[in-house]
Amino acid sequence: MRYVLKIAYDGAEFAGWQCQKNAITVQETLETALYTAFSQRIKTTASGRTDAGVHAAGQTCHFDAELPVPPEKMPDCLNRLLPAPVRVIEGWAANETFDCNRSAKRKTYRYRLYVSPREMPLLERYAVRIENAPCLETLQTQARLLEGEHDYKAFCASGSAVKTTVRTVYEVRVKEREEYGVRVVEVFVTGNGFLYNMVRTMVGELLDLALEKRTADSLLTAYATGDRSLLGKTMPAKGLTLMQVEYE
Amino acid sequence: MRYVLKIAYDGAEFAGWQCQKNAITVQETLETALYTAFSQRIKTTASGRTDAGVHAAGQTCHFDAELPVPPEKMPDCLNRLLPAPVRVIEGWAANETFDCNRSAKRKTYRYRLYVSPREMPLLERYAVRIENAPCLETLQTQARLLEGEHDYKAFCASGSAVKTTVRTVYEVRVKEREEYGVRVVEVFVTGNGFLYNMVRTMVGELLDLALEKRTADSLLTAYATGDRSLLGKTMPAKGLTLMQVEYE
Repeated sequence: MRYVLKIAYDGAEFAGWQCQKNAITVQETLETALYTAFSQRIKTTASGRTDAGVHAAGQTCHFDAELPVPPEKMPDCLNRLLPAPVRVIEGWAANETFDCNRSAKRKTYRYRLYVSPREMPLLERYAVRIENAPCLETLQTQARLLEGEHDYKAFCASGSAVKTTVRTVYEVRVKEREEYGVRVVEVFVTGNGFLYNMVRTMVGELLDLALEKRTADSLLTAYATGDRSLLGKTMPAKGLTLMQVEYE
Repeated sequence: MRYVLKIAYDGAEFAGWQCQKNAITVQETLETALYTAFSQRIKTTASGRTDAGVHAAGQTCHFDAELPVPPEKMPDCLNRLLPAPVRVIEGWAANETFDCNRSAKRKTYRYRLYVSPREMPLLERYAVRIENAPCLETLQTQARLLEGEHDYKAFCASGSAVKTTVRTVYEVRVKEREEYGVRVVEVFVTGNGFLYNMVRTMVGELLDLALEKRTADSLLTAYATGDRSLLGKTMPAKGLTLMQVEYE
């Protein structure tokens, strides 16, 4: 039987999703809980990796196993074995053709910023401070330039091995609210898939465009040439949260 | 010269505001930074204590000293010496009649709840999970019963030594938004002063009233008699944040 789990985690505590040597990852933590519960070595496949420090509200993963617990009971079963920063939110069954990674149609990430001359301890854990931010309308206007089907090679950290760097970004939505007397700006990015570091570089570029540090022309050249140096900086991991993975 | 500081902190890391033996407190942390900066033992007076685990976005404190740094430069001066969970947000000068505790006219606390059958790792740090919550309108209606001038003795943890337990609660405002697919309910309580544990007991009572576990009659009896057993439970510290202290 193929089990699918929806998982949330506080990425601050982990060296990302994927198992690695000498570092504690979410995947390893989850697989350890599965082993504790069922005495079976179960290998999980996620919708995609998340980097060290990146959070998730709706990561998904699947695995095949014959277990005495039905999928919908997996949250109760596993959460008592998981450390507090990781929780299974939902569980369901899927057929063999379903694959959390390959069947994903849309993913949505959120990047959270706050605008303040000083660090705010109650925002620091899940948001990144910036000193200057353009107004919401300017951010929303510039966000349009990051939407569409493009070759996002320039947005991708070097060293990733992927077949194609073309992706479609369906929407870059910018919202704003006030908290603790400061502006909290949230950028929601929805696409059919994302390269390594892509969202964090998109947000850096969005800020540069909106602050007129860079132009639409240089962005178009970056799409055309794949030249990373034409883009803004890669923003820190802690502002990023994988919100949702959608399937058909 | 009398210095006044506005301070924010993540209470998860501290045994409350006030100095105590064998535990790290915010006051001690701040006074250590002052000592490091100025080689003087400076004693600070806050608007009031916050308990272990309670957060602050706008705590205030004052102290008297002759220092080579003007008040408005104190944030920059102290923040580089403070650990990340504590930050000085503002500094200003006051005259000798100003006292952060005795001059306070209004204080506002926020209590944050979220409604979910499961723990959400990205909400757990600053909010308390409840399984059942009444609708916003019911909470707002019942909140009216907690406003006004009352003897809040029944809301006060035993062992506090205060002259009077009469306080005026100007407003109990309930707001709601959605985050990560769950309801986040925020209760803002503004009053002329608060007893030990008072806001946390008010929120427990508000939930009981709104869920019809307790009645307005029992609340009125609690005001009249000071009987703690007539009220709902004291909610956990981590949901509480001291938002603002107002002076004339």
